[in-house]
Amino acid sequence: MAPSQGGSAASANTWSNRFEQGLHPVIERFNASIGFDIALLDQDLDGSIAHARMLGRCGVISQADAAGLIEGLEAIRREAAEGSFCPTVADEDVHFAVERRLIALLGPLGKRLHTGRSRNDQVGTDLRLWLRQKIDAIDQALVRFERALLSQAERHSEVMIPGYTHLQRAQPICLAHHLLAYLEMAERDRSRLADVRRRVNICPLGAAALAGTPVPIDRRSTAAELGFETIYANSLDAVSDRDFAVEFMAAASLVLVHLSRLSEEVILWASEEFGFVQLSDRCATGSSLMP
Amino acid sequence: MAPSQGGSAASANTWSNRFEQGLHPVIERFNASIGFDIALLDQDLDGSIAHARMLGRCGVISQADAAGLIEGLEAIRREAAEGSFCPTVADEDVHFAVERRLIALLGPLGKRLHTGRSRNDQVGTDLRLWLRQKIDAIDQALVRFERALLSQAERHSEVMIPGYTHLQRAQPICLAHHLLAYLEMAERDRSRLADVRRRVNICPLGAAALAGTPVPIDRRSTAAELGFETIYANSLDAVSDRDFAVEFMAAASLVLVHLSRLSEEVILWASEEFGFVQLSDRCATGSSLMP
Amino acid sequence: MAPSQGGSAASANTWSNRFEQGLHPVIERFNASIGFDIALLDQDLDGSIAHARMLGRCGVISQADAAGLIEGLEAIRREAAEGSFCPTVADEDVHFAVERRLIALLGPLGKRLHTGRSRNDQVGTDLRLWLRQKIDAIDQALVRFERALLSQAERHSEVMIPGYTHLQRAQPICLAHHLLAYLEMAERDRSRLADVRRRVNICPLGAAALAGTPVPIDRRSTAAELGFETIYANSLDAVSDRDFAVEFMAAASLVLVHLSRLSEEVILWASEEFGFVQLSDRCATGSSLMP
Amino acid sequence: MAPSQGGSAASANTWSNRFEQGLHPVIERFNASIGFDIALLDQDLDGSIAHARMLGRCGVISQADAAGLIEGLEAIRREAAEGSFCPTVADEDVHFAVERRLIALLGPLGKRLHTGRSRNDQVGTDLRLWLRQKIDAIDQALVRFERALLSQAERHSEVMIPGYTHLQRAQPICLAHHLLAYLEMAERDRSRLADVRRRVNICPLGAAALAGTPVPIDRRSTAAELGFETIYANSLDAVSDRDFAVEFMAAASLVLVHLSRLSEEVILWASEEFGFVQLSDRCATGSSLMP
Repeated sequence: MAPSQGGSAASANTWSNRFEQGLHPVIERFNASIGFDIALLDQDLDGSIAHARMLGRCGVISQADAAGLIEGLEAIRREAAEGSFCPTVADEDVHFAVERRLIALLGPLGKRLHTGRSRNDQVGTDLRLWLRQKIDAIDQALVRFERALLSQAERHSEVMIPGYTHLQRAQPICLAHHLLAYLEMAERDRSRLADVRRRVNICPLGAAALAGTPVPIDRRSTAAELGFETIYANSLDAVSDRDFAVEFMAAASLVLVHLSRLSEEVILWASEEFGFVQLSDRCATGSSLMP
Repeated sequence: MAPSQGGSAASANTWSNRFEQGLHPVIERFNASIGFDIALLDQDLDGSIAHARMLGRCGVISQADAAGLIEGLEAIRREAAEGSFCPTVADEDVHFAVERRLIALLGPLGKRLHTGRSRNDQVGTDLRLWLRQKIDAIDQALVRFERALLSQAERHSEVMIPGYTHLQRAQPICLAHHLLAYLEMAERDRSRLADVRRRVNICPLGAAALAGTPVPIDRRSTAAELGFETIYANSLDAVSDRDFAVEFMAAASLVLVHLSRLSEEVILWASEEFGFVQLSDRCATGSSLMP
Repeated sequence: MAPSQGGSAASANTWSNRFEQGLHPVIERFNASIGFDIALLDQDLDGSIAHARMLGRCGVISQADAAGLIEGLEAIRREAAEGSFCPTVADEDVHFAVERRLIALLGPLGKRLHTGRSRNDQVGTDLRLWLRQKIDAIDQALVRFERALLSQAERHSEVMIPGYTHLQRAQPICLAHHLLAYLEMAERDRSRLADVRRRVNICPLGAAALAGTPVPIDRRSTAAELGFETIYANSLDAVSDRDFAVEFMAAASLVLVHLSRLSEEVILWASEEFGFVQLSDRCATGSSLMP
Repeated sequence: MAPSQGGSAASANTWSNRFEQGLHPVIERFNASIGFDIALLDQDLDGSIAHARMLGRCGVISQADAAGLIEGLEAIRREAAEGSFCPTVADEDVHFAVERRLIALLGPLGKRLHTGRSRNDQVGTDLRLWLRQKIDAIDQALVRFERALLSQAERHSEVMIPGYTHLQRAQPICLAHHLLAYLEMAERDRSRLADVRRRVNICPLGAAALAGTPVPIDRRSTAAELGFETIYANSLDAVSDRDFAVEFMAAASLVLVHLSRLSEEVILWASEEFGFVQLSDRCATGSSLMP
């Protein structure tokens, strides 16, 4: 392929052997997901390290090769931390970017990492590892939110406020009771996220492109090392299942609905007309026009 | 209130005593939910029967009054089954429609049913009872779907078909393996619906308008009679929580995504070009134009 | 087909000649759209009358046959008005329901109506006629809304209220100025609906199933009689275009966003804390619990 | 404010004079939109240059001051092009980032730019200028798409393909006719975008925070210089209207629906089963697993 035809990277693509012409630069840019999936780098490295170790353990590659691959992958992690790992659009996605760098570091050994897997099960693994972390982080933030609610409820345990229906004063209630309603919502949010997490925490590795692999891998071992609770039962389902993303979006939207509801109440309470709360200067910004 | 001012129904409204003028007919139509919530009639009757029985058990009303109320409510159920219970827009919603009919049947006793509750906790109860039934019906339909998949998988256990990536033939797979991927999806759908059901199956009764009720009711007893697993911890949360509806919509959407995916495959397979399946005449309709 | 095989209606279906077995009752129910598209009855009759008249004008059928068909279609309209036209699920959709009734009324002549068209271009016509009416009705309602805003603005032309940013009092403004902002929104809504209407008001008749018809029809004449501004240029596009529905939903959503914004302000202004407005009893309903 | 209290930037905020405490760092991060609205930099500079020139023309500032401000703004544009204009979270948004840099470059003169406007009308102007450019770019891309369709239609004017209903072969059609259906869709998309553009191309400048400004500015002059067709009639509507964003999203979604429909057809046609088209190697990528 002549460089003048564009697609300068194609010659190095792992899948490029059977192609007679390089990829059109517009298609290359359209096809590349590296701009997005670089966010999965840490998870991609974690998954590859577990995969390499398993390949060694199962005798698919030698223990020494496994150790070499793991060393190379950790080197890439260090390069990324230092800012010297900078994939381009020619790298297509985070998986190829890592593989190409690994081959540059280790030579032909680098090519052995992809034995017994495909990018299809690999990206499914990365996504699940990434989302599991996010769910845990949101859960921790919800716990902090609950503590703040409890602390405010205790501090204002004697304060009565109007309870409203349709913004008309209906019945007097304790401010603490009002705040603790949000604790219930947060608990429900945590319960929902825990349910989603169970369906996120299943390992698709071994499904390969869609039909599994003849390589004698040990799926349960990789899954366990990556902290997955179990593995997928069906390889087609394993590579195509993205239900968890929809589920997570629904659960996360409800978290924000609850926070938005509280925020709207604080905005109302902080108005001159309601005057229930006064926000600290440290939470307020000003106008570029008015004094 | 003179009838010439419109709002002919207002004089009979439970809440109409403090109003000097009747409701404007346009507002009355806008406000009425009876066109929608009549779907909750059975659940509303179930909830009211359990409430009446509890009021009698707790001594808030006499056992004889409780029995009378229950008899009246069952009479309304029979009228509905026979088609002679026909609420109009003047009835505002299913709760008032039932109450008004009850008062017509029982006289002043009918007014005692609403003791210790509000429409706010009542409609929350109705919605949960209704949705719990729907979830159970969907779950049973999913079980039938799974059995059909298993039966087809067994019948075609020797059949190989191409596995596709991007609609390009990739690797040969068993048709049974392909079909059983849908079984996994259905199992996941059932697992999700079961999670939603746990959060649906909580009783809001006793929260009243928003702040509970001074009437000495027994919330756990009504909840148990209606098959709820537990009761709400916070009255404000109890009357305002509609999270379960969002959750259910997300879970139900995924069920349909899976069925739509299979349907699209059958459409593809039934094309002349693919020719993998031939649909029975009993599943096919024709054209008004073509032979 | 034996009745014991179900699908009792199939034998009468216009498309049923080439089928050896009747439709499965479950599929029949799933496939039937009559429960929804009966709403299009008037438009379906309007479209068919224009089609029949055009067929007569073009000499595809005799003028006498055209007159007979039109008389039959008007008879169905009268039956519908009187409540005696009651299609069932066996009628599949509004088009077949009308055709079958027409054949019952007129005998074989009824079958000639469908000459030179398909249900595909027919339903597209019905939908556009229906939506055009709805757009005109919404436009008229917006004009009434604008008049009400102008009338309130004139009546309160001296009243000053606080202008808010983030619900904090920012600068004093005239109430009239505040209300007239909604007039601008309504004008924009009307402008958007007028744009949608232009793309709704195009006639798909003549596209037939997808590839047009060899029958020597006059597309422009039917379109003109139905008040369409023009006809589709491409038959495939004519039968598949539903862009207008998406467009309309977007425009209609913005109408409701504006009305919702005003409603939320009135709710805020009617609170005891703001106290800017007092709603008439005729716009208010009460509580089932509180006095 | 002591630096140890965080909010290091607050002291420099344009609105910070009346605050006794600096902004909490978490709120500062939450409040900052600079990470997003830096995309509006060019439009912000365009709007500010037009504003400065108008202020000079109206005698609100001297012509020399106007020239100085414009020079400073162009210097910031050059710095941005060279990569040396790097706002931080402390700059809050693109407007403050530019203003602060302007003051650093020009001293007290820089503060005069914001005379007679607020960030509220400023950001509305930026968004409209930005979206107008995007609409024009999409329109040009659609024209190129139409040319490609026409060219393919001409090249294959003799080719017949099956026309499908429900993916069943229905009637033969010309490939050119099929492709030209997409030309109709693209024309409709362009018509929709042109309608949106008319409602985008209205200048909100002069509305200030919400109630206009006492400064004797000339709104029509700034609007004309920025290529706006007209100005807003109501200041409250001017600063709060975001209808155009919703409208644009709806129109842009339909563009993508049409492109997705064509893409799905190409995928189908490129399957081995259909075999209607063969894609060039230059449009294809390979598998990491399969040969």
